[in-house]
Amino acid sequence: MTIEYDQLEANAANFVPLTPLSFLHRTADIYPQRESLIYNERRFTWAQTRNRCTRIASSLAARGIGKNDTVSVFAFNTPEMFESHFSIPMAGAVLNTINTRLDADTVAYIIDHGESRLFICDRQLWPVLDEALKTCQARPEIVIIDDPDATDKPELPAELDFTYYEDLVDRGDDTFAWRPPESEWQALALNYTSGTTGRPKGVVYHHRGSYLMTMGTVISWALPPHPRYLYTVPMFHCNGWGHAWTMTALAATVVCIRAFVPKLFFELIDRHEVTHFGGAPIVLNMLALAPPEEQKRFDHTVYAMTAGAPPPAKVLESMAQFNFEVMHVYGLTETYGHILHSAPQDDWAEQSIERQAELKARQGVRFAMTDAVDVLHPDSGEPVPWDAETMGEIVIRGNTVMKGYLKDPQATDDVFRNGWFLSGDIAVVHPDGYLQVRDRAKDVIISGGENISSVEVEGVLYRHPAVGDAAVVALADEKWGEVPCAFVELKPGASADEAELIEFCADNMARFKRPKKVVFGELPKTATGKIQKNVLRDRAKEL
Amino acid sequence: MTIEYDQLEANAANFVPLTPLSFLHRTADIYPQRESLIYNERRFTWAQTRNRCTRIASSLAARGIGKNDTVSVFAFNTPEMFESHFSIPMAGAVLNTINTRLDADTVAYIIDHGESRLFICDRQLWPVLDEALKTCQARPEIVIIDDPDATDKPELPAELDFTYYEDLVDRGDDTFAWRPPESEWQALALNYTSGTTGRPKGVVYHHRGSYLMTMGTVISWALPPHPRYLYTVPMFHCNGWGHAWTMTALAATVVCIRAFVPKLFFELIDRHEVTHFGGAPIVLNMLALAPPEEQKRFDHTVYAMTAGAPPPAKVLESMAQFNFEVMHVYGLTETYGHILHSAPQDDWAEQSIERQAELKARQGVRFAMTDAVDVLHPDSGEPVPWDAETMGEIVIRGNTVMKGYLKDPQATDDVFRNGWFLSGDIAVVHPDGYLQVRDRAKDVIISGGENISSVEVEGVLYRHPAVGDAAVVALADEKWGEVPCAFVELKPGASADEAELIEFCADNMARFKRPKKVVFGELPKTATGKIQKNVLRDRAKEL
Repeated sequence: MTIEYDQLEANAANFVPLTPLSFLHRTADIYPQRESLIYNERRFTWAQTRNRCTRIASSLAARGIGKNDTVSVFAFNTPEMFESHFSIPMAGAVLNTINTRLDADTVAYIIDHGESRLFICDRQLWPVLDEALKTCQARPEIVIIDDPDATDKPELPAELDFTYYEDLVDRGDDTFAWRPPESEWQALALNYTSGTTGRPKGVVYHHRGSYLMTMGTVISWALPPHPRYLYTVPMFHCNGWGHAWTMTALAATVVCIRAFVPKLFFELIDRHEVTHFGGAPIVLNMLALAPPEEQKRFDHTVYAMTAGAPPPAKVLESMAQFNFEVMHVYGLTETYGHILHSAPQDDWAEQSIERQAELKARQGVRFAMTDAVDVLHPDSGEPVPWDAETMGEIVIRGNTVMKGYLKDPQATDDVFRNGWFLSGDIAVVHPDGYLQVRDRAKDVIISGGENISSVEVEGVLYRHPAVGDAAVVALADEKWGEVPCAFVELKPGASADEAELIEFCADNMARFKRPKKVVFGELPKTATGKIQKNVLRDRAKEL
Repeated sequence: MTIEYDQLEANAANFVPLTPLSFLHRTADIYPQRESLIYNERRFTWAQTRNRCTRIASSLAARGIGKNDTVSVFAFNTPEMFESHFSIPMAGAVLNTINTRLDADTVAYIIDHGESRLFICDRQLWPVLDEALKTCQARPEIVIIDDPDATDKPELPAELDFTYYEDLVDRGDDTFAWRPPESEWQALALNYTSGTTGRPKGVVYHHRGSYLMTMGTVISWALPPHPRYLYTVPMFHCNGWGHAWTMTALAATVVCIRAFVPKLFFELIDRHEVTHFGGAPIVLNMLALAPPEEQKRFDHTVYAMTAGAPPPAKVLESMAQFNFEVMHVYGLTETYGHILHSAPQDDWAEQSIERQAELKARQGVRFAMTDAVDVLHPDSGEPVPWDAETMGEIVIRGNTVMKGYLKDPQATDDVFRNGWFLSGDIAVVHPDGYLQVRDRAKDVIISGGENISSVEVEGVLYRHPAVGDAAVVALADEKWGEVPCAFVELKPGASADEAELIEFCADNMARFKRPKKVVFGELPKTATGKIQKNVLRDRAKEL
């Protein structure tokens, strides 16, 4: 072989590390006067957003913050939170957003574990941080976002040594040369899992992954140029599904919302002609259940991405009434958010509305940036047959799989096996190749040797007119080993008793899968609206 | 620093080499029954296309063809040409498409220089290959595409040792495990420049670049899912601008056309409800000048990408009449095709049609995958001011810049300088940051110390109603050093004389820029419709 293909090496002109920061520069160069952010009466252009981010990055750099330094952000979906997705990595540092509903103890753990150098905190959340600082070892510099639109403004202690967020901007240098990553594998973000059991784990994202997440999302969500995007999904959750970066790549206009309230949500969509939003199932539920006088129907289609529990047919019907087109996606914090979606096929339009809801509720097929997804049988390790019955674990391969868990080689090793990331989610594959999640591995109920999917039982319960929310966990049983136990929150004003719900389940699914017990009451939920099954499992143990 | 961001290393689950081959697998997995290709009466689904490509790849591998082996394709835009964009790299090999209008001598040069191992040739082109094989040293295995729809089928010599293309399919193994690139930097394609002077140079693409080219094209051309694409741009030209890979990522339906004829073009758009196509300026010209009874106006918008000379306002007006929306792009073989486009701004719609045409005719701003483009002054090496006057050379940085020129370290070094790829094109920057090409570096005419852009003079000539095609080159002049000399092809039936055209130019631009001489006659063009200015320069020397 004399041919020299391999001798042509990379140089600075033909190899540039992939980074989502490049999107801000391109968009600000080409569309400097386009509106970037709207938050109540504050409005910014893309030139202004870049200018502000550059100044903040310079202020961080002036404090010695750079590559692999962690900067935490504990804030709502305001412009400051959006800016942090660029300003912090522009200093070379790692963005660590923190769930605003966490308790002080967990925040303290994150500050120490992530070695936070600087902590940007919305003033409303100061009491939690204050409490956290009493127990943590690290001493991050404190920066306070003092949002004039906040309704809850706790007093800051007179002796507190801190900087106002706007001072980072005002005293910053807008000629600062931002720091592109030295390698596209460099850490970009640190996201702690919600940790339903034990301490949260620190999921590390890199620049390459978030760049490709954007590219794949544009293809698979069919995003047009210049969407008008309402930021309802919290940016502390998988970086708001990466949409801060995606919307920047498209020179979108992003409407910020500090707290989700259905009435305000409908008003903002109307006022700003919003075309896209993302929201957890609880958001869609709240919209569907909002008082009719607050709901609006729009003349234009509004595209919604939702993740987590698949929206029931009834919720999808409500959404259709508002003229919302919902795309259901699947993903994990470890995969930068969404990696599967129920990509519609041409012939679905001919199906009944109910059948369409069933088809759309499946987790589906891979996004454009996702290399491979399979469902492996727990015993053989081989792909399960496409029979919609045999359950296995979802495994994932692709460039939007995390670098690993920070400072946790054991947990990292546990999830990377044989060239796959193990999701811990249990699914079946339908004959058309679409995946459907049956359960979290630990939520499967094994009754008399048969696997019962708690999700399947919950699906039946949701179809009962009186059921508002439902969760099914295992209850220890002398005879069967485990049996399903349902926790149910009834709709306001609705009524049903245990026998009625058990009978309803028995009539609507394989009888052995019916719950043997039903407990009524409010269900415990995480900040992102996930039902905390670990809490219910503890309750079931006490029954 | 105890934090361990850098200790989280890549593994097979979270780092996958980027390759456009992944698009075929995802699309065939999700949309197996969707139509992939239409060519006259032949139709394929994505499952069939993957099956055929896999079989061909296995047939290549069985011949010992693999990584860094060159496979040449000398063919028209038929399904075989499209399949080659996947089958050849799926064997790990390098795809070398060859311009169908090249002479035997150049084809022989390419076979030897690229060390072609296997040569896939459309039967119609056999006489050229036959001639080439008489002079080249390499002995590639011959594969013949015997297109039943070809009108020109020269006899193949009885003693010729060759394989029919369909035998590669029929005897192939559809369980063959395709070979993903070992590295995303691995060579994917070898494209020889048209070489207006001297021997053509072999431009090497890698998998990473073509993957990112697709992603950026989807954003910047705002491509929807499932376009219906008519493949008018020859796939031997920058791999048909990479659209074979882009359309696959979008699970498009690609309509093949063996030879461009306006009547057939309009019929195919109509019959197959085509939504997108790409075409050189000559294609748009031919459509605009087609007999009215062959032209059609469509109810739906058809999106066209055009590259090379900006379409004149009159051509854009014709396109608008057909309901074609034209996007003018700029790029080079060395940049995988398009890297700049005249991205429309909101306020352009308020401008006059003529002004809009001017705005759209500029080369514009960078595509989403293009990292940086600038215009550097030849003396200072600094960016030129945004004054629409000062000329400099376009320089480019990004992941869609070639690996380099094969076996030509000198030429490679010449174009990579200070972290930039030097385009050789001369441009100005408008006050809004949009670039406009003034000339190829070697086409600038220096008259009395003033730079005259030949493109600018040509632009004025094109506005004369009798001018069909025009090219301006330097003519040696005792007094001025150089003066512009115009070569003009009049429209059929139109008439104009030298004095009239010179006066027209003098009236419509700075007088000193007017041509001093006008030569009438047919203009020499390359296979892709580019006027061969080197030929005209030679003619000018003889004047």
